[in-house]
Amino acid sequence: MRPRVGVWLFGARGSVATTTVAGAAALAHGAPPAGVVTAGPAFSDAGLVPIESLIFGGHDVTDTPLAKQVERLVAGGVLPPGLDGLIAAELAAAERNLVVLPSAANQAEQISLMASDIRAFRSRHDLDQVVAINVASTEPPYDVLYDDLAALRSALQDGNPLPGSCVAALAAFEAGASFIDFTPSTSIRPQVIRDWAVERGLPFGGQDAKTGETLVKSVLAPMFTARALPVHAWSGTNLLGGGDGATLADPLAAESKNVSKERGLADMLGPDVVGQVHIDYVDPLGDWKTAWDHILFSGFLGVRMTLQFTWQGCDSALAAPLVLDLARLSALALERGHVGPMPFLGFYFKDPVDSTEHSLTTQYDALVRWVQS
Amino acid sequence: MRPRVGVWLFGARGSVATTTVAGAAALAHGAPPAGVVTAGPAFSDAGLVPIESLIFGGHDVTDTPLAKQVERLVAGGVLPPGLDGLIAAELAAAERNLVVLPSAANQAEQISLMASDIRAFRSRHDLDQVVAINVASTEPPYDVLYDDLAALRSALQDGNPLPGSCVAALAAFEAGASFIDFTPSTSIRPQVIRDWAVERGLPFGGQDAKTGETLVKSVLAPMFTARALPVHAWSGTNLLGGGDGATLADPLAAESKNVSKERGLADMLGPDVVGQVHIDYVDPLGDWKTAWDHILFSGFLGVRMTLQFTWQGCDSALAAPLVLDLARLSALALERGHVGPMPFLGFYFKDPVDSTEHSLTTQYDALVRWVQS
Amino acid sequence: MRPRVGVWLFGARGSVATTTVAGAAALAHGAPPAGVVTAGPAFSDAGLVPIESLIFGGHDVTDTPLAKQVERLVAGGVLPPGLDGLIAAELAAAERNLVVLPSAANQAEQISLMASDIRAFRSRHDLDQVVAINVASTEPPYDVLYDDLAALRSALQDGNPLPGSCVAALAAFEAGASFIDFTPSTSIRPQVIRDWAVERGLPFGGQDAKTGETLVKSVLAPMFTARALPVHAWSGTNLLGGGDGATLADPLAAESKNVSKERGLADMLGPDVVGQVHIDYVDPLGDWKTAWDHILFSGFLGVRMTLQFTWQGCDSALAAPLVLDLARLSALALERGHVGPMPFLGFYFKDPVDSTEHSLTTQYDALVRWVQS
Amino acid sequence: MRPRVGVWLFGARGSVATTTVAGAAALAHGAPPAGVVTAGPAFSDAGLVPIESLIFGGHDVTDTPLAKQVERLVAGGVLPPGLDGLIAAELAAAERNLVVLPSAANQAEQISLMASDIRAFRSRHDLDQVVAINVASTEPPYDVLYDDLAALRSALQDGNPLPGSCVAALAAFEAGASFIDFTPSTSIRPQVIRDWAVERGLPFGGQDAKTGETLVKSVLAPMFTARALPVHAWSGTNLLGGGDGATLADPLAAESKNVSKERGLADMLGPDVVGQVHIDYVDPLGDWKTAWDHILFSGFLGVRMTLQFTWQGCDSALAAPLVLDLARLSALALERGHVGPMPFLGFYFKDPVDSTEHSLTTQYDALVRWVQS
Ligand SMILES: NC(=O)c1ccc[n+]([C@@H]2O[C@H](COP(=O)([O-])OP(=O)(O)OC[C@H]3O[C@@H](n4cnc5c(N)ncnc54)[C@H](O)[C@@H]3O)[C@@H](O)[C@H]2O)c1
Ligand SMILES: NC(=O)c1ccc[n+]([C@@H]2O[C@H](COP(=O)([O-])OP(=O)(O)OC[C@H]3O[C@@H](n4cnc5c(N)ncnc54)[C@H](O)[C@@H]3O)[C@@H](O)[C@H]2O)c1
Ligand SMILES: NC(=O)c1ccc[n+]([C@@H]2O[C@H](COP(=O)([O-])OP(=O)(O)OC[C@H]3O[C@@H](n4cnc5c(N)ncnc54)[C@H](O)[C@@H]3O)[C@@H](O)[C@H]2O)c1
Ligand SMILES: NC(=O)c1ccc[n+]([C@@H]2O[C@H](COP(=O)([O-])OP(=O)(O)OC[C@H]3O[C@@H](n4cnc5c(N)ncnc54)[C@H](O)[C@@H]3O)[C@@H](O)[C@H]2O)c1
Ligand code: NA
Ligand code: NA
Repeated sequence: MRPRVGVWLFGARGSVATTTVAGAAALAHGAPPAGVVTAGPAFSDAGLVPIESLIFGGHDVTDTPLAKQVERLVAGGVLPPGLDGLIAAELAAAERNLVVLPSAANQAEQISLMASDIRAFRSRHDLDQVVAINVASTEPPYDVLYDDLAALRSALQDGNPLPGSCVAALAAFEAGASFIDFTPSTSIRPQVIRDWAVERGLPFGGQDAKTGETLVKSVLAPMFTARALPVHAWSGTNLLGGGDGATLADPLAAESKNVSKERGLADMLGPDVVGQVHIDYVDPLGDWKTAWDHILFSGFLGVRMTLQFTWQGCDSALAAPLVLDLARLSALALERGHVGPMPFLGFYFKDPVDSTEHSLTTQYDALVRWVQS
Repeated sequence: MRPRVGVWLFGARGSVATTTVAGAAALAHGAPPAGVVTAGPAFSDAGLVPIESLIFGGHDVTDTPLAKQVERLVAGGVLPPGLDGLIAAELAAAERNLVVLPSAANQAEQISLMASDIRAFRSRHDLDQVVAINVASTEPPYDVLYDDLAALRSALQDGNPLPGSCVAALAAFEAGASFIDFTPSTSIRPQVIRDWAVERGLPFGGQDAKTGETLVKSVLAPMFTARALPVHAWSGTNLLGGGDGATLADPLAAESKNVSKERGLADMLGPDVVGQVHIDYVDPLGDWKTAWDHILFSGFLGVRMTLQFTWQGCDSALAAPLVLDLARLSALALERGHVGPMPFLGFYFKDPVDSTEHSLTTQYDALVRWVQS
Repeated sequence: MRPRVGVWLFGARGSVATTTVAGAAALAHGAPPAGVVTAGPAFSDAGLVPIESLIFGGHDVTDTPLAKQVERLVAGGVLPPGLDGLIAAELAAAERNLVVLPSAANQAEQISLMASDIRAFRSRHDLDQVVAINVASTEPPYDVLYDDLAALRSALQDGNPLPGSCVAALAAFEAGASFIDFTPSTSIRPQVIRDWAVERGLPFGGQDAKTGETLVKSVLAPMFTARALPVHAWSGTNLLGGGDGATLADPLAAESKNVSKERGLADMLGPDVVGQVHIDYVDPLGDWKTAWDHILFSGFLGVRMTLQFTWQGCDSALAAPLVLDLARLSALALERGHVGPMPFLGFYFKDPVDSTEHSLTTQYDALVRWVQS
Repeated sequence: MRPRVGVWLFGARGSVATTTVAGAAALAHGAPPAGVVTAGPAFSDAGLVPIESLIFGGHDVTDTPLAKQVERLVAGGVLPPGLDGLIAAELAAAERNLVVLPSAANQAEQISLMASDIRAFRSRHDLDQVVAINVASTEPPYDVLYDDLAALRSALQDGNPLPGSCVAALAAFEAGASFIDFTPSTSIRPQVIRDWAVERGLPFGGQDAKTGETLVKSVLAPMFTARALPVHAWSGTNLLGGGDGATLADPLAAESKNVSKERGLADMLGPDVVGQVHIDYVDPLGDWKTAWDHILFSGFLGVRMTLQFTWQGCDSALAAPLVLDLARLSALALERGHVGPMPFLGFYFKDPVDSTEHSLTTQYDALVRWVQS
């Protein structure tokens, strides 16, 4: 019999999380799985858990009802009109599994309270596996000062040495859940957090889903390389509204995003490519993102040429099917007893853990190889 | 000792041919090999013939001096200022190997005269191998009515049953040369022409180099497929001047190009994608091409999104290094005794012989595998 | 007291007509008049008829209910969700004034039947004025062979010498209505049709509303002129779905549109600018239009530069407020006793009657001057 | 007899200045005056000084020979190949009039030394008029603390209270020259500097020539206004290399530019339009600028639509003919005895002195009216 799988979302009332929960429900009602990579034939023999059997829960700092978020996303054209009525029952069920982030005297206690929430979810639904995914607001960069587990554990007793994303990762590990970071936050970057996962025998992956401009980059940059065309400058401007846009209007949060966005380009094209990447908050765009990229390259005998592209996408609608993919693939990793980083999930991320491979096709092949292995 | 290789160009005074000859000379004078794929590390152990040792000759219908074409290309920004002076000796050497297309009573005689020209080139330069490449003006589509060799041979005695590109291919085969079609013309499309090559024990490849819009398509279409994002419409407009633009202003010639441009999209995305491709002659653009593509796709739950790109390239500067690649790779195929179609060269073509694979990365991998085999 | 004004639409169940009727109703319910030029301060003292007092009727060849069309436009994102409920009463009222195009033995009879329909509308609603506007499908170009009224009248008795748009114009004139052509069809192009209007003492205007690509052209072309920058090539591609797109997929209908689209450019920039304009039917775009234009110009000492733009608009939402403007302005012209062509409405049209002025600002100034005169 | 006119350039060895001097010489050799607005028929009866009779001089901080700058601009495709040879005599003549910026104990002395340089130029060439134009590097914003002439004069004796652009303006006024600021620097912004000009009975104008993105804005924004289409967001990214680009890579200098770029939009569309403008230094673009703008607006009943444009221009080739225009128009103003600000030159500037009108057509009409008055 197939294992019962629960998906625990940090940031469970945000746009990505809401679209994920609503979308899974829509699929159960017969919507076609557009954008769900694991719905393709290459994945059909892997015994992945069916999307309609996934059970959702999660933490968030706000308590705005999921149904209200769905309404907002329908009005914004992210979710189809009429969906709210159709999936009312599924929304109500998920709503019951959402918990407001507990507060505590120190982070040791907070981790323990959060892990309890996850464990309660697990036993309430009699789950075999819980896969945790961080879709909370992007944090500013953060230096974690502890690099052995003992020192960290004692610091956690005394105060709040970690950013929220690290706390979330540790809570997942304490509850026996795998952890994926869909954001560029600190979470599993510090070695000490990774050590903790390994100690608990759990897999982790991330970071920062590639759903738009960076996705396109990850096929265009290899094209220039394959054709031996030197790239001189790659410049980009991203316009976005929505909650994510509002968060990234803070230059510190944007810095996390930018670092992660730029990593791939240097890995793919070398360090000599100049150009900046801008992220502008444009409130009236709502959940829509527009990215313009300008690439200056040269051909034979130094002739200068350009490629420009404009991507106009609905971020949450691009992200949600990938969250479903990652939940299914994490469950497979748990089942296979995989421990530590999951570089074979690099296909999904701007800044893949334990990998400097950014070419989408190569990443896709690696993913399929792992699934079919 | 390395074999001496001659490159025979049909259309030897056109922009692509001139840029190829001038570029090879520039490389011999130390210009970096930007755009030459076979200059990369993956090809360094294959024993490919060095570019600077290639010897050029060819047929054309006009007799405008090469030096004059180079001048025009320098004025148009395709070739760097000052190049003409630097490479005067190489140009003069190539000029001596260019022959005006002979005329004859029937095509049997014409093939034989053209083959003699190629054989004379071979013996004059004491060549071990001759690789022929068609870079002549694109022809309108043409139905070749003969499908066995005997019937064709007798028709050739009586008149002119073939378009120029087929005649060129047969002349190459009669002279023991390999043949690559860089254009979408008829050349090696008919089975009977392919049979002729096999009878002579020679390799052939093509067709229609992908250097711009189609190149970008061949990485973007696989991206949509890999991410399971349904593409609804793909529309494109190509603006170009130059000799190629003037030829394609003829709707019949444009039809050959369009058929070849559209093949890949259907192979990559299936038959349901709507959208037209336009090729507009815009004389004041000179040798520059601008392509705009608009792609309408949908994400999760049917949300519509778009990707647009604008490619601004100098066609001849993109094509010439590929002609050099194809010359080197054809020489390798001859050396290895390869007979018949060369699908492993699909990386270079919009409409690869004997292959329906259009994804650039997959094609690149296949090419490298063949070279390293 | 203000005159009671009726608006008679040819093509009354199409997208533009439906959006016009629905939009007028929405304004009556308090929606802000975005896109309605005559709602601006420059028009406030002219005594224009209030939009909410306009009464709608019209002819169409189909009888699909208006309410159903509204539903389709809401689903396509042209009209806001929920509008259908809000304006049900107004839709029902308009529905009662819609008549299926009568058929008749010859066009003399058809004109008379259609004029009766309009007169019945006038008396049913006790209207002081009726303004007719053609928003029916674009027709192919048509040569009208009669150039005096007597000859035309006798031909009409005998058969069908005119295209539908001319018949519509004559029916309007017979019913004492003004006539505006929002389309590029033949309608008021022939001198004999204009003579008929003058004989009846009525004003007419048009043709082919400028709502997208051509609107942008009408400010960009004057910019190049004002700055003395020579334009060499102007190329454009229009992608559109919807009913209008389906009609224009017929090359003959597209020809009418293209002629009208290209007129302005030559008038503004002279005859030496090369470049083509494409109109592609892309069904999955629905009522949305995307236009890409590429302009090649040169600056000081001949340096080549480019401007490209991409316009993504919802055609009916751009057109409907202009239909309301034109209804109000036609009523003013009737009130002022204006007879014959109305060149002062050139601001609204790609191919303005009796005018070669295409610069939007100049046209705007002329419009305001007339209104305030 | 026509007056002899000298043009004094601050920043006389920069790209704009060099292109101006070289371009005037090219016109004298018969090049067509593309981009020179005052070469048009509307200006032919105004008795403007002929371009070929203008005599050039100026200050710069460097002493790189003009001929070398011309060479660099030819290599960069800004000036046509071969121009250097053709205009060698004119370049040498201008070279003799270029002076390195003097240094002095305080700014009173520096102004006096610079004014002497200008007076020497005037007498050496027996000039009737000198028009000064600032085309030096853009400065950071600067607060000038003195607001009456006496206080300023005494501060100048004691030290360096002014930025270089104000010093340049005062030196021009002291030498009896008119002054135009082609840049967004402080120069004539402070009231006290304007008072100084008025005291000397001289005209001044500026600021910050509109040659690219802002030029396009100044016709597109009025289009939205004329059509009553609400604009919600206007975002822009400018990529440029060259000396100007290197200067604007300094965030302080960029601030001056941004303030001036953004002024027009608020004046034209009101304060509610959101969006940022970026200026990125992309060294490999050389003297070329690429600007991408994204405009989010809505139509009838709130439907969201977008317009995007990409401008690819050669800045100096766009600027130089305007410098020639401004020299001729300044000479006319001097001849007419105009004193104080010249708002009728607003057509040329992003941030016109004494004017909030930014619509290009309206500005053009005002310019022509003044010239013909
Ligand atoms: N949508 C995409 O395409 C995409 C791609 C890559 C990365 N991401 C990342 O995914 C994340 C979510 O994006 P979104 O559009 O849903 O944003 P959002 O602002 O709509 O949602 C974020 C949610 O996180 C909650 N939150 C904030 N701090 C929290 C904390 N400490 N613990 C738990 N919840 C917390 C917020 O209350 C909010 O409900 C962002 O970090 C974004 O950068 C999204
Ligand atoms: N440049 C690219 O990126 C690219 C890409 C794909 C395909 N191609 C194809 O390469 C070909 C060459 O392009 P180009 O830009 O050099 O065009 P071009 O017009 O400059 O050159 C074509 C040359 O072929 C000659 N020619 C015509 N008919 C001939 C015949 N029967 N035999 C021999 N010579 C003949 C012409 O005289 C001319 O010199 C075209 O068919 C083009 O479609 C080019
Ligand atoms: N929407 C714009 O921005 C815009 C701009 C310029 C011109 N136009 C023109 O406006 C017209 C309407 O556009 P639309 O998008 O509403 O198209 P549509 O196809 O939705 O509507 C056209 C309507 O005309 C009806 N019709 C066809 N022949 C008729 C006839 N002989 N008499 C009466 N009705 C007839 C059709 O049944 C249909 O209901 C088109 O000609 C279009 O080219 C539209
Ligand atoms: N090119 C355009 O389209 C355009 C449009 C608007 C404004 N501008 C402005 O015009 C100016 C010139 O642009 P450019 O491209 O020629 O730049 P540039 O960097 O090539 O030239 C600037 C010149 O000014 C000189 N300079 C610096 N400080 C000076 C001082 N205090 N006094 C005298 N000279 C000094 C520099 O040495 C240099 O030679 C810039 O401020 C630019 O922002 C240009
Ligand atoms: Na790839
Ligand atoms: Na205008």
